[in-house]
Amino acid sequence: MTELETLGAAVKAAERKLSIANTKQKNDALLAIRAALLENKARILEANAADMAAAKENGLKSAFQDRLLLNDKRIEDFAKGVADVAALPDPIGEVISMNDSATGMTIGKKRVPLGVIGIIYEARPNVTVDAAALCLKSGNACILRGGKEAIRSNTVLADIMRGAIESAGLPADCVALIHDTSRESAKELMGLRGYLDVLIPRGGAGLIDSVVQNASVPVIETGRGNCHVYVDDDADLEMAANIVENAKCSRPSVCNAMETLLVSEKVAAKFLPLLLPRLQKYSVELRCDEKALKILGDAAIPATEADWGTEYDDYILAVKVVSGIDEAMDHIACYGSGHSEAIVTTDYAKSQRFLREVDAAAVYVNASTRFTDGGEFGLGAEIGISTQKLHARGPMGVRELTSCKYVIYGSGQIR
Amino acid sequence: MTELETLGAAVKAAERKLSIANTKQKNDALLAIRAALLENKARILEANAADMAAAKENGLKSAFQDRLLLNDKRIEDFAKGVADVAALPDPIGEVISMNDSATGMTIGKKRVPLGVIGIIYEARPNVTVDAAALCLKSGNACILRGGKEAIRSNTVLADIMRGAIESAGLPADCVALIHDTSRESAKELMGLRGYLDVLIPRGGAGLIDSVVQNASVPVIETGRGNCHVYVDDDADLEMAANIVENAKCSRPSVCNAMETLLVSEKVAAKFLPLLLPRLQKYSVELRCDEKALKILGDAAIPATEADWGTEYDDYILAVKVVSGIDEAMDHIACYGSGHSEAIVTTDYAKSQRFLREVDAAAVYVNASTRFTDGGEFGLGAEIGISTQKLHARGPMGVRELTSCKYVIYGSGQIR
Repeated sequence: MTELETLGAAVKAAERKLSIANTKQKNDALLAIRAALLENKARILEANAADMAAAKENGLKSAFQDRLLLNDKRIEDFAKGVADVAALPDPIGEVISMNDSATGMTIGKKRVPLGVIGIIYEARPNVTVDAAALCLKSGNACILRGGKEAIRSNTVLADIMRGAIESAGLPADCVALIHDTSRESAKELMGLRGYLDVLIPRGGAGLIDSVVQNASVPVIETGRGNCHVYVDDDADLEMAANIVENAKCSRPSVCNAMETLLVSEKVAAKFLPLLLPRLQKYSVELRCDEKALKILGDAAIPATEADWGTEYDDYILAVKVVSGIDEAMDHIACYGSGHSEAIVTTDYAKSQRFLREVDAAAVYVNASTRFTDGGEFGLGAEIGISTQKLHARGPMGVRELTSCKYVIYGSGQIR
Repeated sequence: MTELETLGAAVKAAERKLSIANTKQKNDALLAIRAALLENKARILEANAADMAAAKENGLKSAFQDRLLLNDKRIEDFAKGVADVAALPDPIGEVISMNDSATGMTIGKKRVPLGVIGIIYEARPNVTVDAAALCLKSGNACILRGGKEAIRSNTVLADIMRGAIESAGLPADCVALIHDTSRESAKELMGLRGYLDVLIPRGGAGLIDSVVQNASVPVIETGRGNCHVYVDDDADLEMAANIVENAKCSRPSVCNAMETLLVSEKVAAKFLPLLLPRLQKYSVELRCDEKALKILGDAAIPATEADWGTEYDDYILAVKVVSGIDEAMDHIACYGSGHSEAIVTTDYAKSQRFLREVDAAAVYVNASTRFTDGGEFGLGAEIGISTQKLHARGPMGVRELTSCKYVIYGSGQIR
């Protein structure tokens, strides 16, 4: 057995106990984690200071350092997040259906944990706490493998959580951290069949691609978003400008931000000049097809083919003038990532067509793509936004971290 | 673009149309397939005769030849199966939930097709028709890749189905067959990202392992079954003997057949001699641990460690005497494949523990494992039995071939 297999076996054994823990036991463990995080602030900050010093020494970007940084406020936010997860309804044990069979057996379908969940992520120590709390609430043990730049912070956070879980009477191995942050350890985790029921990558496109290409365990892809807003010829243009401004500029670095604007040629000449000052406030760079360029002139630059497929995560917007809803939907089918897509229109028939025909996790009429979020959709905290269609689609809360089993009550039936 | 990518793009385009087809359109296509299969019996039998001749020439086993063989009766069964699928309720379009959000949007969650489903299977021409019908009903296009020994039969079956689909006004490419049956074509299908939403292998352990190890598209594992029956010290022994006989002998080649018998030491000396003649009728080979061997003597042979993990699919049974329910559940947790597990007991508390603590797709009290089946569980036809926990667990019917999307009705909301 390799070191990781030994860890996998220990986590799997812990999961057998956790899977049958009741709601109170799991909530007690979560509240113990909350208390321990607050009590051990100084220890967490000390470890994080060492990570930050190394990051500075290695000249890592300021955005990267910002994600790595912990302070009093952020630790308090972690602790509040854990308490919020404790307050969620327990998804486990729900009987989804139950019926008597033709031969007199009672056949029920019951919600159960997935089992052992692996999470691979980058240098965001908040994921260590968020992911562990969501897994614990849903009866899943987890194996965490964070980025090497955060290893000191993660080690202390995992240690604190494991102690708290044990103090609440559940096995410490319900939450395990992989201390080896080499590429090899990530690869081995992707192939840990027999121990891992699912692997969830959280991070940039490079990480997700690597997991999808290399994993032999089941994977849920998360977080890639090339989102569009289509402004129809029947749009309320003032509403459309509000929505585009919000979808692009309110938080461009997240996956539900808009990347490409599609405008009907019937309103482009009126709408684009109306929109321009809204985007100029944020110095948004506009990359336009030929028709949009003619309207916007010096305020824009030409788009290349690559722009239509790019998730900028930045103050950059691709703009294309289309002949109408059909060309807009064809463009989305070709370039969209299946995350969030919106139409702005006052036309009933076109609103229905867009909702029905566009294939994405979330399809909007007259609202910003920025709403695609576990909190906004009423799921409570989320572990990520699935952009695949298998198992879960869109924001994933604790319910999306469950499976089911059939329970059959017989009285001697044979077939 | 490779040849397979070209095919993938054509199927994806067909799926955009199929995904928005209504129930009547899909049922019309299914009924057209049913009629075309019956009208073209002679053509199907001719192609199958060529497959059978080649199989005989290549000296393939008689069980293999039996699975490959078509005759009038089997083609009529196919046609009836397609009509049965047409009669199932349409899973697509169901609104699973719909609520008003805090900001006044209406957020609904709606059942939609998965998209394009790949099926890799061996030389069973029935899968070609079954899989295509289930995919069509659930609004999914499919790419079929069957074993090379059945390629002549499959080519004719696919051709007939494609013609029928087109005659009903849907695109022929809703069903596509890969004609290249080389290993390379299978590997390429496993990596067809961007065109395939899920790949389902149907066949033996070798095929499933190869898909799981090599695929970069999402996979649903099906069909491996190392199932146990545990006879508790509080069992009705007559009932237990009936269940064990049925679970082992009624159809040993299928995945829900029992492979290992676990008996409590408190009843082993009484139960095993009672069971023995039941199994001897079928010449079942008994591979026993030391304690069971002492009881059964010459009627059995010693088991090795490998026996506990083996899916025999044959008239062979591994037998182990255990100290009670805890050791039985530990054994199942260690060696089980997560398919179907049963306890025979009259004790209420132990029945509840077994149902709660055993982690498998189907867990039984006082009934045979042989009931794990889409028809028995009320799903109608099944495309396979999932032994993984992600997306679907246990028998998969048309509903398990669906995903969902969020549809959001706004009135200008921004975040």
